Amino acid sequence: MTAPVMINAYDPSSAGNLDPAVSELIARRERVLGQPYRLFYEEPVHFVRGAGVWLYDAAGNKYLDSYNNVPSVGHCHPRVVEAVARQASQLNVHTRYLDEGIVLYAERLLQMFPHDSSRLMLTCTGSEANDLALRIARTHTAGTGIIVTANAYHGITSAVAQISPSLGLHVPLGYDVRTVPAPKDYGGARDPGEVFMRDVEHAIADLRRHGIRPAALIVDTIFSSDGVFAGSPGFLAPAAEAIRAAGGLFIADEVQAGFGRLGTHMWGFMRHGISPDLVTLGKPMGNGYPIAGVAARPAVLDEFAAKARYFNTFAGSPVACAAGMAVLDVIEDEQLMENAHTVGLHLKEGFEALSKRYPELGSVRGQGLFLGVDLVSADDLSPAPQLAARLVNELRRRRILISASGPHGHVLKIRPPLPFTTEHADMLLAATDEAMKALTTSVG
Amino acid sequence: MTAPVMINAYDPSSAGNLDPAVSELIARRERVLGQPYRLFYEEPVHFVRGAGVWLYDAAGNKYLDSYNNVPSVGHCHPRVVEAVARQASQLNVHTRYLDEGIVLYAERLLQMFPHDSSRLMLTCTGSEANDLALRIARTHTAGTGIIVTANAYHGITSAVAQISPSLGLHVPLGYDVRTVPAPKDYGGARDPGEVFMRDVEHAIADLRRHGIRPAALIVDTIFSSDGVFAGSPGFLAPAAEAIRAAGGLFIADEVQAGFGRLGTHMWGFMRHGISPDLVTLGKPMGNGYPIAGVAARPAVLDEFAAKARYFNTFAGSPVACAAGMAVLDVIEDEQLMENAHTVGLHLKEGFEALSKRYPELGSVRGQGLFLGVDLVSADDLSPAPQLAARLVNELRRRRILISASGPHGHVLKIRPPLPFTTEHADMLLAATDEAMKALTTSVG
Ligand SMILES: Cc1ncc(COP(=O)(O)O)c(C=O)c1O
Ligand SMILES: Cc1ncc(COP(=O)(O)O)c(C=O)c1O
Repeated sequence: MTAPVMINAYDPSSAGNLDPAVSELIARRERVLGQPYRLFYEEPVHFVRGAGVWLYDAAGNKYLDSYNNVPSVGHCHPRVVEAVARQASQLNVHTRYLDEGIVLYAERLLQMFPHDSSRLMLTCTGSEANDLALRIARTHTAGTGIIVTANAYHGITSAVAQISPSLGLHVPLGYDVRTVPAPKDYGGARDPGEVFMRDVEHAIADLRRHGIRPAALIVDTIFSSDGVFAGSPGFLAPAAEAIRAAGGLFIADEVQAGFGRLGTHMWGFMRHGISPDLVTLGKPMGNGYPIAGVAARPAVLDEFAAKARYFNTFAGSPVACAAGMAVLDVIEDEQLMENAHTVGLHLKEGFEALSKRYPELGSVRGQGLFLGVDLVSADDLSPAPQLAARLVNELRRRRILISASGPHGHVLKIRPPLPFTTEHADMLLAATDEAMKALTTSVG
Repeated sequence: MTAPVMINAYDPSSAGNLDPAVSELIARRERVLGQPYRLFYEEPVHFVRGAGVWLYDAAGNKYLDSYNNVPSVGHCHPRVVEAVARQASQLNVHTRYLDEGIVLYAERLLQMFPHDSSRLMLTCTGSEANDLALRIARTHTAGTGIIVTANAYHGITSAVAQISPSLGLHVPLGYDVRTVPAPKDYGGARDPGEVFMRDVEHAIADLRRHGIRPAALIVDTIFSSDGVFAGSPGFLAPAAEAIRAAGGLFIADEVQAGFGRLGTHMWGFMRHGISPDLVTLGKPMGNGYPIAGVAARPAVLDEFAAKARYFNTFAGSPVACAAGMAVLDVIEDEQLMENAHTVGLHLKEGFEALSKRYPELGSVRGQGLFLGVDLVSADDLSPAPQLAARLVNELRRRRILISASGPHGHVLKIRPPLPFTTEHADMLLAATDEAMKALTTSVG
C-alpha cells in the first residue's frame, strides 16, 4: 500500500518523550476524533498563532512554514481576514437570492482563464469540485471512463476516492477507472509528452475494449502526489488532444498548482498552451476559507445544467466570494506570482547545489514555489522514504515545516505560502544542509 | 420529474417587469454562472444586509425571513461573526497539526449525543457528511444497499445524488438504492411507524433478492423534501431496528432537523428514543460558515479508520470549530431550542386556525420551527403546487420569505431562523391570511 502522506505520521507506539501538555491533548483528541485523524511528525506540533510564513507554538517558538499552500497569501493575511469579517457581519445567504459578490468574483476570476472557460460553478472543497467535474464530464460524454495518473490524489468523496490511487489498496479504484504512469523525465531518452500521450491512448483503448466509453482524463498539473513534476511547457498538450479525439474531456486539477504558485502563470495548464474543458480549483482559493470550484467551457455544462440540478448550501456565499476576492487582490497587489517565480528559481538552484553535495539528495523538480526533491540511497539511488521521514522530522526539530510525498514517500515536498522570500529560502536551505549533515553522518 | 425546490424559481421567459438594476444583475449572473444557478421567486430579490430574522434589500426594505435555517441563530449573529474573525486573525491550519479548538468543540458537541455516538468526523458540507457516512456504512457492513424515502434529498456528490430521488428523473438512483414511501399520517387507520418498518423490511428483502447486502437506511428525521413529517415520538424506532436486524446501519440525517430546531430535542432522532449508528450534521452548524460532520459509534468507524484514510483540507480547522462553538454558545445562552418549542407551538396553532378558514390550506405538520402546510385544491383536496407557488410569490411581495417543497411542490416550508418570536409568527400568519384572501378570491 502506498502511503505517501503518512510516512511522517505520529505513531503512538514509537513516540518519544513528548511534552506532557502535548501528550494530554493527543489523548483527548483520540478520544473524540479517533483513528481516522492522523498527525504530522514523530513529535506533533501544537500551534497557537500564524502570520505570514510563520507558525508559533504555545511556548512562543516560531516555525518557518515551507509546506502549506492553503494559507497561500500568508497565514491570517489581514486583508482576507478583514474581508471575511466585514462580509460576515453584513450578509451571508445562499445563491438562490441575487448577490453582486458572486457575480463580481466570477467575472474577475474568469478573466484569468482562457476565453473558452467562461462559466464558474462554486463548491466548498476540492473534492466537491472534482466530484462535480466527474458528474459534468460523465453527463456531457455519456461515458463513464476516467483516466488518472498512477499515484494521483483528487479528493475524498466516494466517486473521487475511486479515481485517487494514492489512497492505497484498501480503497479500490472504480471498474471504469484506468491509471497511467505519471509523466517523468527520461533523461532525454524519451519525450515525456509523447510517452504520456501514448499511455493515455492505451488506457482509452483498454477502456473501449471493456465497452466503457471514456469520459475524461484528469491531471493535477503539478503531479503533486505522484512526486512533483513540472516538465517542459507544452508536454501535456498531446495527451489532452488524445482524450478529446476519443470524445472525452480534459480536466485540469489546479487545486495544487493554481493561483500563481508556479510563478509564470496563474494556472498550471497555461504552461502547456491548452484550454481544458474543465478546470478544478481549491486549496489556496480563499486562503483557508472553504471555497473551491469548477471553471468550464459553457458547452460542456449545457447538458448537465438542463438535466441535473446543482445546489451547494454554503458554496458561493457572499462571505466565500469576499474571501476569494481578497485573495485575488493580495496576489495581484503583493505580486505574489512574480515572487513565486523569483524565489522559486533561487530555491531550486539552492536545492540543486545541495544535491551536488549530498548523494542522498537526488533529482530536484517543479517550478515556482512548488518543488520536489528525491531522497535516495547513496548506494544505488533507490528511493529512501525512511531517510525522507527522518529529514522531515529533523527539520521539524529545527523548526522548519515540510513533508514528504510521492508513490514511495521519498519526495520532499516544498510548497510554502507565497510571501516566502529569498531569506526564507536560504533558511530552509541552510537547515536542510545541517539536517542532511547530521543524518548522513549519523546513519551513514 | 419532481422539482419541489424549483416550483418557485425565477423564469426569464415569464418574468414580469423587473427593476432594471435587478435585470442587469441577473443578466451578468447568467453570463458567468450559467444555467445551473436558479433563483427564487418570479421576481428575484437582491439582499444587501441581514440581521436576526431580517434581510434587507438595496432600497432598504426589510423582509421577514421565515425560511432559512442556515443562519439558524440569526443572520450575521455578532457572536459567531466575532468568533470567526478573531480565530481567522490568529490561526487557521488543517487537522494534521494539533489544535485545541477541534478537541474542545468535539467534546462539547458529542456531549449532546447519546453516549454511543462518541466520535466526530468533520467535513465542510452536508453532502460531504452523507457521502462519508455512505463510505463508512459500506465499509463496516461490506454491503452496498441503501434505503431512502421516496422524495429524499441528502446532497449532491455523485454517490449522494444517487440516493437523492428528489433530484428528479434525470439523476438516476444507484442500482443498489431502494426507495420506500415516506412516513405519513394515515388518519389513525394505520400506524405510520409500523407501515414504515414494513416498507423498510420489504426493501431489505428486495435488495437481498438482487444479491445486494443492505448497508444502511438513511432518513432526514423531519422528512423535509418529502413534505415535512414529524410523526409521534418513537415511530422511527421499528424501522431502525429492522435495518439493524438485517445487518445494516441506521443513519440519521440531521442536516435539516438538528441543532434544536424541533424545540424538544437537539436532534430529531432523539424524539424516537433511538441511538443511530451514524448521525450527519450540516446547515445550521456554523450559522453559515461551511462546517458539517458525522457523529458515530466508535465500532462503526474501526474498519473504515483502519482501511481508508480521510483528510478534508478545510474541515475541522480552528476557524470552522470557532464558528461551531459560537453557535452552540448562542443556542444555549439565548435558549433558542426552548424558543423554537414555544414559538413553534404558537405558529402551528396559527396555521391550524388558518387551515380551518381556508379549504386550500390542508394538513399542518412538523414540530418546533419546522412546519409544513399543504396547499390543496378546494374541490378535491388534491395537491395544488401552482397555488403554493402563487402564495410563495405573493408573500414575497409582502416581504415575507418562504418556499414550497414536497414531492408535488405543494407544501409550504416554514423554517425560520431560531430567534423568531411570537410577534414574527403573527406577522407571518397575518400575511398568509391576507395573501390567501387575495389569491382565493382572485383565482377562485
Ligand atoms: C490535486 C488535488 N485535488 C483535490 C484535492 C481535494 O481537496 P479537498 O481536500 O479540499 O477536498 C486535493 C487535496 O489535497 C488535491 O491535492
Ligand atoms: C437533509 C439534507 N441532507 C443533506 C443536505 C446537503 O447539504 P449541503 O448542501 O451542505 O451539501 C441537505 C441540503 O439541503 C439536506 O436538506
